[in-house]
Amino acid sequence: MKMSFRWYGSNDEVTLNNIRQIPNVSSIVSAVYDVRPGEVWDFESIMKLKKQIEDESMEFEVVESVPVHEDIKLGKPTRDKYINNYKENILRLSKAEIKVICYNFMPVFDWTRTQLDRRLDDGSTALVYYPHQLEKMNPLTGELSLPGWDASYTKESLKEVFNEYSNITEDDLWSNLEYFLNEIIPFAEKCNVKMAIHPDDPCWPIFGLPRIITCEENLDRLLKIVDSPFNGLTFCTGSLGVSSDNDILKMVDKYSKANRIHFLHLRNIKITPDGGFEETAHMSKCGDIDMVKVLSILHQNNFTGYIRPDHGRMIWGETGRSGYGLYDRAIGASYINGIWETLSKKE
Amino acid sequence: MKMSFRWYGSNDEVTLNNIRQIPNVSSIVSAVYDVRPGEVWDFESIMKLKKQIEDESMEFEVVESVPVHEDIKLGKPTRDKYINNYKENILRLSKAEIKVICYNFMPVFDWTRTQLDRRLDDGSTALVYYPHQLEKMNPLTGELSLPGWDASYTKESLKEVFNEYSNITEDDLWSNLEYFLNEIIPFAEKCNVKMAIHPDDPCWPIFGLPRIITCEENLDRLLKIVDSPFNGLTFCTGSLGVSSDNDILKMVDKYSKANRIHFLHLRNIKITPDGGFEETAHMSKCGDIDMVKVLSILHQNNFTGYIRPDHGRMIWGETGRSGYGLYDRAIGASYINGIWETLSKKE
Repeated sequence: MKMSFRWYGSNDEVTLNNIRQIPNVSSIVSAVYDVRPGEVWDFESIMKLKKQIEDESMEFEVVESVPVHEDIKLGKPTRDKYINNYKENILRLSKAEIKVICYNFMPVFDWTRTQLDRRLDDGSTALVYYPHQLEKMNPLTGELSLPGWDASYTKESLKEVFNEYSNITEDDLWSNLEYFLNEIIPFAEKCNVKMAIHPDDPCWPIFGLPRIITCEENLDRLLKIVDSPFNGLTFCTGSLGVSSDNDILKMVDKYSKANRIHFLHLRNIKITPDGGFEETAHMSKCGDIDMVKVLSILHQNNFTGYIRPDHGRMIWGETGRSGYGLYDRAIGASYINGIWETLSKKE
Repeated sequence: MKMSFRWYGSNDEVTLNNIRQIPNVSSIVSAVYDVRPGEVWDFESIMKLKKQIEDESMEFEVVESVPVHEDIKLGKPTRDKYINNYKENILRLSKAEIKVICYNFMPVFDWTRTQLDRRLDDGSTALVYYPHQLEKMNPLTGELSLPGWDASYTKESLKEVFNEYSNITEDDLWSNLEYFLNEIIPFAEKCNVKMAIHPDDPCWPIFGLPRIITCEENLDRLLKIVDSPFNGLTFCTGSLGVSSDNDILKMVDKYSKANRIHFLHLRNIKITPDGGFEETAHMSKCGDIDMVKVLSILHQNNFTGYIRPDHGRMIWGETGRSGYGLYDRAIGASYINGIWETLSKKE
């Protein structure tokens, strides 16, 4: 296991030196964030990022993420251009010695919550997803802006892309993903870069948009499209764990045994009675995910990939990027360090 | 194991709410700090402290510390007055439902370091003890002030107390401790309050002043003076671990099996080639103490007492009370949580 930590680049309020001071964090997860989805990343920008990270004695081996252009998800004629750009990015990242690329295949929206600052009893705040709040949300009225969402959408362009998806079924999305993977994975294999798809977050359709990276059956289907370790997963306990239909422990075991998990996001959540969820501190007792069991299974299966503490509450009055404050993620990393070291010494 | 955290009262820059937001911290370690050593604590002050803590949904069951007046350590005739005051404090604390009282028997000085802000490679700072720095220090010239030291000493009063100790041998200190324990322990037992002596820090004589709570042989001798569980230990891995003569794991096993450890300070240190030491992050790989082994032994011996993360580096630019910043102690607590939960689930 390599302990990693996400960093949003020079504009991130959390500095590389902050992260370096967290015991055992050796790897930084980042990306070139100032490029539009679908465009090619400037090699200088990639190398600059790598140097900044190495100057703080950490490694840059995981990219999160290289966005997939909507035209690829929609299967539009223009997709081939964007797939070529995607390949070029894989090639450039491989030249920078990147080992894993995290990406997702969620239409329009990335991760979605209904409230980013839900106050908990102890005064900390967390991201939550409440169905009764979602009912009141309508992306097309444009009142809505969440950090997971591409802020570059105007109300008009959002209407447009919703229209384009109106006749895209789940099966269409599957065949567009299949087309993409058949192009990308063999190329990534040549470049020796492992692709690691992130599950949909939450793992169900929202606003009538299809979502397919949601459950064991669909992950099996995904991994079979190109049956190669380079067609792998970013296993996110939080994204998959919010559906009680998902047997997280079984899935971690199955996919780590098969050597298809290259990167883990460890986040804890509590499912609410109405089928929503609240993000919690990482510790098992705080949520529904048993972190010790998850990590025990990974350890048994000799997991050697990357782990990062995902999201976290806002504590101690910290302000900043929702889910990506320094404090609770550092506490999470340290908790995971304690678990992993204990597992390593109990053998 | 009950996870606890030290709090210095309303003047502490770290607030109770800060501490409450650390997962699994259920118990606050504090004291009435505005009273001179040897004096009786105002019951109102004790109850006010208890209420402040309970208002943040935590418990107040461990006091650190009730200082032992120098006249007791020196065996002066006036000691009986101060021993009676000490008993009165035990009684009052028992009425506030305090379970454990931490104290120490170090002449004049509490914990001693030669530098409080040694900068590490990653930009964090730590407390260190370097013999070459100690040689240059002379408490009697009064240039010296470290947080562990009773600031109320003037240069003159310090000279005075040094003079009084000039003819106190280790044996004298032992008989004065014996006199104290024979008075205190039976009384504490009646009050159902466990006394937990803290080892000398570092565990060797400094500035010619004798120190006796330093090693296994002496801890054995101490525990035999009154062979009761109420005559117990605050086992501090950092204080005892800085001497390579101390087999920490053997001592933890022996004293936790014997049910004489009521409170633990978990701190990590690195012994320097010249026989000094540097405090480090809590994680085993950062120092010479194997935290997983320490906690495994405690877990095997069904330890049910209190643990607190002790000291810590100053990270993320935090300023404040040396060794008692919020950030690195919270990271330490979380690391210990991960270890303990894993041990509990591996059984």
